[in-house]
Amino acid sequence: MSISKNHLKLITSLQQKKYRQKHQLFVAEGVKVVKELLASTLEVHTLFCTHDFLAPVDNVITISDKELKKISNLKTPNKVFGIFKIPKEEALKNDELTIVLDAINDPGNLGTIIRLCDWFGVTQLVCSKDTVDCYNSKVVQASMGSLTRVSVIYTDVSKYVAETKLPIFMADMKGENVYKTKLPKEAILVMGNEANGVSDEMKALVNSTLTIPRFGDSQQTESLNVATATAILLSEFRR
Amino acid sequence: MSISKNHLKLITSLQQKKYRQKHQLFVAEGVKVVKELLASTLEVHTLFCTHDFLAPVDNVITISDKELKKISNLKTPNKVFGIFKIPKEEALKNDELTIVLDAINDPGNLGTIIRLCDWFGVTQLVCSKDTVDCYNSKVVQASMGSLTRVSVIYTDVSKYVAETKLPIFMADMKGENVYKTKLPKEAILVMGNEANGVSDEMKALVNSTLTIPRFGDSQQTESLNVATATAILLSEFRR
Repeated sequence: MSISKNHLKLITSLQQKKYRQKHQLFVAEGVKVVKELLASTLEVHTLFCTHDFLAPVDNVITISDKELKKISNLKTPNKVFGIFKIPKEEALKNDELTIVLDAINDPGNLGTIIRLCDWFGVTQLVCSKDTVDCYNSKVVQASMGSLTRVSVIYTDVSKYVAETKLPIFMADMKGENVYKTKLPKEAILVMGNEANGVSDEMKALVNSTLTIPRFGDSQQTESLNVATATAILLSEFRR
Repeated sequence: MSISKNHLKLITSLQQKKYRQKHQLFVAEGVKVVKELLASTLEVHTLFCTHDFLAPVDNVITISDKELKKISNLKTPNKVFGIFKIPKEEALKNDELTIVLDAINDPGNLGTIIRLCDWFGVTQLVCSKDTVDCYNSKVVQASMGSLTRVSVIYTDVSKYVAETKLPIFMADMKGENVYKTKLPKEAILVMGNEANGVSDEMKALVNSTLTIPRFGDSQQTESLNVATATAILLSEFRR
């Protein structure tokens, strides 16, 4: 078999958020990631596989390496390219450690943060509507399958944070030393935009600001990347 | 003025490690990164700037936005592209917290780790010879100027580790819970390759293995990315 023009058109359209939302579909590829998605409750739309990939589902189309290369977003295409159905967003919970992302732009950062949530047992990630789409293919690939185990919810984060009864923390350069702060088991942790940090509207809602102290001599050191800062803060909440 | 054919040829050649080593030059671009490099002890070879960048050095060539776009590796070229001289490698020290990288492949990971070293006051990063080159342009851009404050040394890391008197730790999935381990102020921390971890040769030299415990229910969760794991472990050594 091979890829039809309609499939090609669909795959190309799914590079854009508006078509992912219209069709309620997204793409994922490579043996590792696709196998994790297949093992989850996600539904498959179509799977395009080279002959040496054994797919345990229907809706499989066998393609050549050359065809795979044509549709792949990877430097080294890896046997399988899938179209999956976007699952229904889960209901917001309000009783456990939750990360809130305020306008995160970089797909690699979002993917890494989803993977960190999975590692640290944070099952809910609440994102502002201007945060990069978690079904963006770069996010899907960077999250390495963790996307199936973390509930990512796009909503009005200011409203969500204003209504919670949990203590609200945010990360910022000018706050309390996180190593000296007693952290509760359940809380909201707000992480801000890569360039501008947390928005002023959100800052007004926060109870405590956490800072990871700088140990280098230099005052020139850049702030930490948002994904590495999230790693360190989640580790502090869970240790 | 504009860019000569010889300059174009030089810039293209510097995408390859062998020519960076032959010419002892590397490239860096964008206002933020170039300004940090200019403020350091690094020597400039040539700076290519659009008319609105005020460069406080000689060897400046003013170019058009179109020319900048032609030589830039960035999606959004930003006013300045510099060729810098690779500084002399500093001498190996053996008396402070040091990160050893064993075959790190991804330029983004190395750049992030250099930035983390800078933040946590780790002034020396010792890399195996098969670790990605720190003057690779993706590493330079990801390190955001931290490269001028961290001494990156390529050497036979097994020999270095075998000869040190400091306690030697490595990160691995099967080790002691890092949160329950007493960590010394001065030590060697070995971080391994993205896919294969620390080499067997290196494992034989290590005194203690550190693990960041997984808090999620799932046994499927991927291991942490090497850069986020380095972030958490450096935080534990310094907290």
